[in-house]
Amino acid sequence: MSAYHPLTEQEAIEIARTVEGIFPEGAALQSREIGDGNLNLVFHITDPASGKSLIMKQAVPYAKVVGESWPLTLDRARIESEALILQNELAPGLVPTVYKYDADLALTIMEDLSDHIIMRHGLIKGESYPKFAEDITTFMAKTLFFTSDLGKNQQDKKLLVKNYVNPDLCKITEDLVFDDPYTVTDNNNYEAAIEDAAAALREDGELHLEVALLRAKFLTSAQALLHGDLHTGSVFVTKDSTKVIDPEFAYYGPIGFDVGAVIANLVLNYAGQGHWIQDPSELAKFRGYLIESVRDIWTKFDLKFRALWDEHGVDRLFNSAAGYKDLYMKSLLQDAIGFAGCKVVRRIVGLSHVADIDRIPDAADRERAQRLALEIGTSLIKFNRKADSIEEAIDIVWSAAAKQ
Amino acid sequence: MSAYHPLTEQEAIEIARTVEGIFPEGAALQSREIGDGNLNLVFHITDPASGKSLIMKQAVPYAKVVGESWPLTLDRARIESEALILQNELAPGLVPTVYKYDADLALTIMEDLSDHIIMRHGLIKGESYPKFAEDITTFMAKTLFFTSDLGKNQQDKKLLVKNYVNPDLCKITEDLVFDDPYTVTDNNNYEAAIEDAAAALREDGELHLEVALLRAKFLTSAQALLHGDLHTGSVFVTKDSTKVIDPEFAYYGPIGFDVGAVIANLVLNYAGQGHWIQDPSELAKFRGYLIESVRDIWTKFDLKFRALWDEHGVDRLFNSAAGYKDLYMKSLLQDAIGFAGCKVVRRIVGLSHVADIDRIPDAADRERAQRLALEIGTSLIKFNRKADSIEEAIDIVWSAAAKQ
Repeated sequence: MSAYHPLTEQEAIEIARTVEGIFPEGAALQSREIGDGNLNLVFHITDPASGKSLIMKQAVPYAKVVGESWPLTLDRARIESEALILQNELAPGLVPTVYKYDADLALTIMEDLSDHIIMRHGLIKGESYPKFAEDITTFMAKTLFFTSDLGKNQQDKKLLVKNYVNPDLCKITEDLVFDDPYTVTDNNNYEAAIEDAAAALREDGELHLEVALLRAKFLTSAQALLHGDLHTGSVFVTKDSTKVIDPEFAYYGPIGFDVGAVIANLVLNYAGQGHWIQDPSELAKFRGYLIESVRDIWTKFDLKFRALWDEHGVDRLFNSAAGYKDLYMKSLLQDAIGFAGCKVVRRIVGLSHVADIDRIPDAADRERAQRLALEIGTSLIKFNRKADSIEEAIDIVWSAAAKQ
Repeated sequence: MSAYHPLTEQEAIEIARTVEGIFPEGAALQSREIGDGNLNLVFHITDPASGKSLIMKQAVPYAKVVGESWPLTLDRARIESEALILQNELAPGLVPTVYKYDADLALTIMEDLSDHIIMRHGLIKGESYPKFAEDITTFMAKTLFFTSDLGKNQQDKKLLVKNYVNPDLCKITEDLVFDDPYTVTDNNNYEAAIEDAAAALREDGELHLEVALLRAKFLTSAQALLHGDLHTGSVFVTKDSTKVIDPEFAYYGPIGFDVGAVIANLVLNYAGQGHWIQDPSELAKFRGYLIESVRDIWTKFDLKFRALWDEHGVDRLFNSAAGYKDLYMKSLLQDAIGFAGCKVVRRIVGLSHVADIDRIPDAADRERAQRLALEIGTSLIKFNRKADSIEEAIDIVWSAAAKQ
């Protein structure tokens, strides 16, 4: 790692030239650092003359959000790069193509997706994405099934588990999602207006038990290679394209965590939409679209995962034991609902928030959205082990919204 | 690995001389190859003059039981050696001391325990071991707790998971314990007399569902660093000493698998004792001792594990969430009962049997023992998820025996 240093824009341009087959010889390249995340430098390298471009993502050895005091291994760049390559094999076209990975620089050079927008930003504007549910469930079903003991040689799977051991990034999730919101810590971040609701999280024993059970699954259940951070800020979309980015949190974990992350971020947007769309009938329509998406996420995922299992299942007993598949899918649904709840709650009171709610300018609107999200999140968590269908989770969303 | 070759006894002696602090200079060492397992050479090196001795265990690159056709990585020697060293730190005195590990030769040089006997052989003779339940539960509670997310730094734990990825040895268990007994395969090995009972295993859908669920836990649940093969042939005993050997199957798996292995092998002896002890009152007494041991294994393990958790728990939420500890321990009990059942069944119809039953010379006695073991094993498997106390498992053993 001795060659490692954070790149300057000029260095980024020089390295970009070495990627074969992208830019014409001698192109006048431009660089713009566009990283708005917390963990990386992101250089957007363009050649205005040819219209060609690429993205260079370089890990930095600390979390920017808390200064240099939170060190993070550069190994996450290897994990991200290898995960992207594997995901592109398993779910072609649904992640950016990796052109090159430089281990010394912790640098991944990949396809530019600037014709897409971050899905979260689109949703905030009230845009709907008709292909999203279809694409994201294809992505999840394929990447999760084919890295699990159901769809992959079980000895090779163990080598993947080893390859994707990811302590630093898992620690972030373990703290921010599965601990901080339920205790007093400087990591938490919420407005004084919801102090009572935040305090309630810390005093709710029923909630703590369910979060503990979900935390244990996150820590021990090596079901499949997760994306690990599958929120709507990790998805680039157009009306007819979906690209999943940023798998630096990838590790072997419980499948429901990825599915739940998608659902959670639709729910967070749902909670925020009370402000972004003011017209009641437009609001009802867009919220209807979000709910329909939640339903589709589960039902399409369930259908596709089962179809892959039917066609490509590698395990004699898992394939043949009557009732096993139904039990397995039900357990994924329950996990997804529980993890969705945890991911909603942490975005309201934890360290890192979402624009869907945080950027609501009106304080009363924002508070209403925060309280709605907390109500939905905690209800999903408490309900998770009882769930039998996605409709029950949707009812939780409806009825929490109806109470406001 | 280029230096690797199976050692001759003369080579073993020369290497033994290089271990510091054991043998006097120029001692006339003797070697005897005593490996009766399937996977290793074991040299017993002695110096009759000083009475000093040691054990050299060398992995061979194939499973002897099926000739050279079943290749096995020599990496298991590293895993065994490192597991022994770690177990000795966590549960001092309950495993042999490792003097030296030679990676090139896949060779572990360790404390000689020839003043102990293999517990299985002692039990067959009707010997009882008053310290066993105490020692083995100390061993399990300490090694399992302190390698789990409850008792170990959770980021360091992930590095241990990585270090103990053990595909070849896990594959043996996955096949022999969690698949073969429930299907037709050349690996299976049972007598014609119990063909009906073996066929019943293959046709029992309720059983298959439970075995599938247990198999999934074995494949995905990285709770703690298991011994992985904790039967009574892996335990050296005297009346007042217990030493656990042979952790080459060590990997991160479900805690109940180790606990269940101990229980299973007491149950197997219980089933066989109908022959070994013929006097009805002696038989009842020894079976009573075995049942008492099963009860002690769980209750002492439960007590010690909880005590370690109370004193050394590292996880804020796991420590504080009301009801979590009870749910966790109940789930370990259920797993232990289910895994115990699987381990009993495989020793009757699968590839590898136990002397407690196989060496019964009388065919009718042997068949009775085999049928009793299968009845207990399948009942434990079917009951596992309903279990609430070890007494229920004991009732299953009693009532199966009473029916014979």
